[in-house]
Amino acid sequence: MARMNGNFLNLKENYLFIEISRRVGEFARQNPGSRLIRMGIGDVTLPLAPAVVEAGKKAFDEMGVKSTFRGYEDSGRGYDFLREAVSGYYKGFGADIPPDEIYISDGAKSDSGNIGDIFSADCAVTVTDPAYPVYVDSNVMGGRDITYASSDESNGFAAAPDLSVKTDVIYLCSPNNPTGSAYTFDQLKKWVDYAVMNKAVIVYDAAYEAFVTEKDKPRSIMLIEGARKCAVEICSLSKTAGFTGTRCGYAVIPKELVLSAPNGEEKPFYKLWERRQGSKFNGVSYPVQRAAEAVFSPAGLRQTREAVDYYLGNAGIMAKTLSELGVPFTGGTNSPYVWFKCPNNTDSWEFFDEALHKINVVGTPGAGFGKNGANWFRLTAFNTRENTLEAMKRLKELF
Amino acid sequence: MARMNGNFLNLKENYLFIEISRRVGEFARQNPGSRLIRMGIGDVTLPLAPAVVEAGKKAFDEMGVKSTFRGYEDSGRGYDFLREAVSGYYKGFGADIPPDEIYISDGAKSDSGNIGDIFSADCAVTVTDPAYPVYVDSNVMGGRDITYASSDESNGFAAAPDLSVKTDVIYLCSPNNPTGSAYTFDQLKKWVDYAVMNKAVIVYDAAYEAFVTEKDKPRSIMLIEGARKCAVEICSLSKTAGFTGTRCGYAVIPKELVLSAPNGEEKPFYKLWERRQGSKFNGVSYPVQRAAEAVFSPAGLRQTREAVDYYLGNAGIMAKTLSELGVPFTGGTNSPYVWFKCPNNTDSWEFFDEALHKINVVGTPGAGFGKNGANWFRLTAFNTRENTLEAMKRLKELF
Repeated sequence: MARMNGNFLNLKENYLFIEISRRVGEFARQNPGSRLIRMGIGDVTLPLAPAVVEAGKKAFDEMGVKSTFRGYEDSGRGYDFLREAVSGYYKGFGADIPPDEIYISDGAKSDSGNIGDIFSADCAVTVTDPAYPVYVDSNVMGGRDITYASSDESNGFAAAPDLSVKTDVIYLCSPNNPTGSAYTFDQLKKWVDYAVMNKAVIVYDAAYEAFVTEKDKPRSIMLIEGARKCAVEICSLSKTAGFTGTRCGYAVIPKELVLSAPNGEEKPFYKLWERRQGSKFNGVSYPVQRAAEAVFSPAGLRQTREAVDYYLGNAGIMAKTLSELGVPFTGGTNSPYVWFKCPNNTDSWEFFDEALHKINVVGTPGAGFGKNGANWFRLTAFNTRENTLEAMKRLKELF
Repeated sequence: MARMNGNFLNLKENYLFIEISRRVGEFARQNPGSRLIRMGIGDVTLPLAPAVVEAGKKAFDEMGVKSTFRGYEDSGRGYDFLREAVSGYYKGFGADIPPDEIYISDGAKSDSGNIGDIFSADCAVTVTDPAYPVYVDSNVMGGRDITYASSDESNGFAAAPDLSVKTDVIYLCSPNNPTGSAYTFDQLKKWVDYAVMNKAVIVYDAAYEAFVTEKDKPRSIMLIEGARKCAVEICSLSKTAGFTGTRCGYAVIPKELVLSAPNGEEKPFYKLWERRQGSKFNGVSYPVQRAAEAVFSPAGLRQTREAVDYYLGNAGIMAKTLSELGVPFTGGTNSPYVWFKCPNNTDSWEFFDEALHKINVVGTPGAGFGKNGANWFRLTAFNTRENTLEAMKRLKELF
């Protein structure tokens, strides 16, 4: 009799965006005239850059002609042209990643979820609280025990390692979703040192690296000494270049990184990952890879930068408003998110309802990301400038 | 200390296509003047249909305009337009699959590999021998015991269930890769009955369904009575519409299908799959989904049919030659593959070398797909008509 993976019974149902959608829908039905401003979901809104669109179309044209048609990609790890482009992008901010350490995928969610396949089920996992739910859920599915590193007001939502805790796998995200906080070089070095000491692996989610503006914040963990011995970096074009619906990401796996085998030997991490992907993945669509390549062309970099700067402009407006109000918050500088404390320590779902009903602004209750978010609230910078300004005007009235 | 999933140590290295490539490369270097005909790898060669190219380009244009831009797909299960198109395609050959039982993915390899996530590690798995290596490898990674159902000359390479064997999960592929044999309705009904009796799940790979030409062979397991209680169907546009490099597939999961939970309850299979995909997958690229939709338009169906018929024409030429030679074989009728017995029961790698060196034809040694392939050889119909005819002329000389 076919039996289910029993670990799935330990998953918490994730009602966050379903529940938001339900409450917003009900409100909209009851208040058809209201002008709702949606700053809840972390999805981009500006279109793909012209250079990216042209590259995607050109690739589809190639696919329609026998002499330029492409079938299976030999390796499934990404075409050389894209791996070289990503490698060049890393060079642009000082990280030296050879193309053969870059693995192209359909996005950071797939990589951060699937990477669990190569870890032993008895590895101890550390996740920050709050965090992107995928890190928790994929490890619950894999039957792993999870301990939480506290991100809270006392540390600026930048959890530090607890040297007394032994761990095997650590998930970090910087700039952080949902809190918008970004690690400094020094803070991240502490995690790298801790991982090296424990022979642990850091799965580092750099999906928001393009939003880093401050010089003391690294855009890649590979800029930290020692990271090549302990870290995998997962990144995505979703936020860098508006690829949330186009789907392309990449992982960086240094050749030095190893996992220990039951027989005491050490196995190269990249070989295990290649074996995993070789059996369960067949590479990213050729037109999508060409579109992704164009992100890193001079025109693509300039055009996608404009969109990131636009979002950062919105984030800056939100940060300025929260500063003026004297509300504790993180983000807004190196991130498209602001994460602020609900007034009077209100429960985040209560504040959600208040913001929805009183000022018609939709955000995300921090409780959806972990217990440390219980009284915090996330707003995104992905709306228009006009709506962002209007939402901040209304927020001032509410506070 | 981070430890690897020890099951990976039980994987057999898959040298098949690496070794073929090595031997062919060496031969080509030593014989620069030879006219090699490559009929080894099961990859399509004809370009995408014009309707498909246009749809992909149009979607990229939409992505470049704010009002038509698409970000995250809400469900990650595929846009309604594509699920409805696939549902309509099934109707065309008599299978009634509602759109909400269709799950769009980046291909059959991803689905057949990832589906293991939702089965218990102690499920017993049955795979045919020979078989597509992904079924074996993904289950070895998941730590499951595998028993083999023998596909061999005695049963026309159409393995039948062994009623004395208890099993939980069964992988079937029809029309089959590598043997080209296709189950009849009656043969497949026996598997369905066996699965229902054992409360087992059949993972049915229908990637080659578009090549079925004979009326007594089903194009979908969902045409068999009882299948909705025991089967998942995985399919792909790779062979149907030349999507090996464009990447799109789909799974059919009937609402009735359940897995048993540790507490004795029954859980709907589709809910477990949605939870898995919800945490580890973010949907298929929008332009690719639009390109896939166009496959099922009247023009797309007509244009992609031409390519399939062209390949079937080549397969027919190969089958005719093997018949004339009196060589035992399967495939060639409902499949782009022919699978034939090496002359004098030669070892398949020996025959590979003989074909390479004496007639400059590259095929695939059956040994790469399981022990029952030790003396069998696969040729594909994906080359040109001219080369296929020439290869058959040479094969006649060899035999």
